[in-house]
Amino acid sequence: MVDLTQLMENEVFMAFASYATIVLSKMMFMSTATAFYRLTRKAFANPEDCTGSGKGENAKKYLRTDDRVERVRRAHLNDLENIVPFLGIGLLYSLSGPDLSTALLHFRLFVGSRIYHTIAYLTPLPQPNRALSFFLGYAVTISMAYRLLRSKLYL
Amino acid sequence: MVDLTQLMENEVFMAFASYATIVLSKMMFMSTATAFYRLTRKAFANPEDCTGSGKGENAKKYLRTDDRVERVRRAHLNDLENIVPFLGIGLLYSLSGPDLSTALLHFRLFVGSRIYHTIAYLTPLPQPNRALSFFLGYAVTISMAYRLLRSKLYL
Amino acid sequence: MVDLTQLMENEVFMAFASYATIVLSKMMFMSTATAFYRLTRKAFANPEDCTGSGKGENAKKYLRTDDRVERVRRAHLNDLENIVPFLGIGLLYSLSGPDLSTALLHFRLFVGSRIYHTIAYLTPLPQPNRALSFFLGYAVTISMAYRLLRSKLYL
Repeated sequence: MVDLTQLMENEVFMAFASYATIVLSKMMFMSTATAFYRLTRKAFANPEDCTGSGKGENAKKYLRTDDRVERVRRAHLNDLENIVPFLGIGLLYSLSGPDLSTALLHFRLFVGSRIYHTIAYLTPLPQPNRALSFFLGYAVTISMAYRLLRSKLYL
Repeated sequence: MVDLTQLMENEVFMAFASYATIVLSKMMFMSTATAFYRLTRKAFANPEDCTGSGKGENAKKYLRTDDRVERVRRAHLNDLENIVPFLGIGLLYSLSGPDLSTALLHFRLFVGSRIYHTIAYLTPLPQPNRALSFFLGYAVTISMAYRLLRSKLYL
Repeated sequence: MVDLTQLMENEVFMAFASYATIVLSKMMFMSTATAFYRLTRKAFANPEDCTGSGKGENAKKYLRTDDRVERVRRAHLNDLENIVPFLGIGLLYSLSGPDLSTALLHFRLFVGSRIYHTIAYLTPLPQPNRALSFFLGYAVTISMAYRLLRSKLYL
């Protein structure tokens, strides 16, 4: 049997595992933020969620959208759209044997850009704060995809 | 060349592969459920989808939202938001050499909680059925992230 | 230390890495398409995004939805819903030691079906172009899930 712990002795792979876990944990925090704003602002998407805030017809008025909740949901969806490619491309890139320092630069820039993107989205900071952090994360993922395809293309 | 079938002889990894495939297949079922409700309730998002239900101006009236369809779509999005972190963190956790019994407990609780979440969302069951199943799956993923970062952090 | 470059000498895994990177890059293109339509059609989701198009109350009128933008967003979400299962199931399937020719057939059909799906969604082509491309990609993923569970089930 192959000793899988050897995979985890590869420094690039360990670094990828650490940064991927951090950025996924950050993304999961968005669910908590949505739940927090839904509860404090009493803005729910499902009739059965309103019963804690009122009874019968009174509860129905909480079945509404709220700017703050929608903002968190947009930030969450943007995370999904960008972190999924990072996970897939980053995993394969990590296995393709890149330099440790180059790989660390990619992972750190991506995670930093996504954390800054969330801050810029939720504060909200004026543009182009959010746009630039989005494009930085985007460019990092494209750079990993390019390096991967250049070295390992098999169609 | 490394014999990849050896990776599949690792019991934790095989268990992860099985549970991940099951929970992803469950998530894919949500697409079918959305299509089913869109067709039976004649509630479409695109003009070109309405032509099977009527001609010309008559078809336009099917370009609408429906409570049931929106409910399935919210359940599907919630799946995406929670299964993506499970896939990423779970894969890396599986490779970090955990106990088989601990790993199985994590995978089973997660898959069970997501199946119950779908049932609670689509029936719908009264709260806190859905909220508790959501938080169980969430806690399982956080627990795997914590164990992974504690044993293998490399920043 | 295990030589990870050996993993990349496995032809099935290299093929998966190439096709996964291509389909993820295609999905990332949807973000650019959304940004393009938001800017050219002046239809924004956040107040802070409108300031480039007008000042004060004048800017608020650009806080609206647009058919074209919503169409790209639906296509993007459909990509996410289908590419996430492909990534998870496809990765595990690639590691389960399938025939190279069978694996290539699966990967090529999936990537082809998603590219055609995007063209059918954005043009838009009349149905059932989009529906058929959706179901082809769906069937390919289910076929990989079935082969994986049949050979490697461990619950």
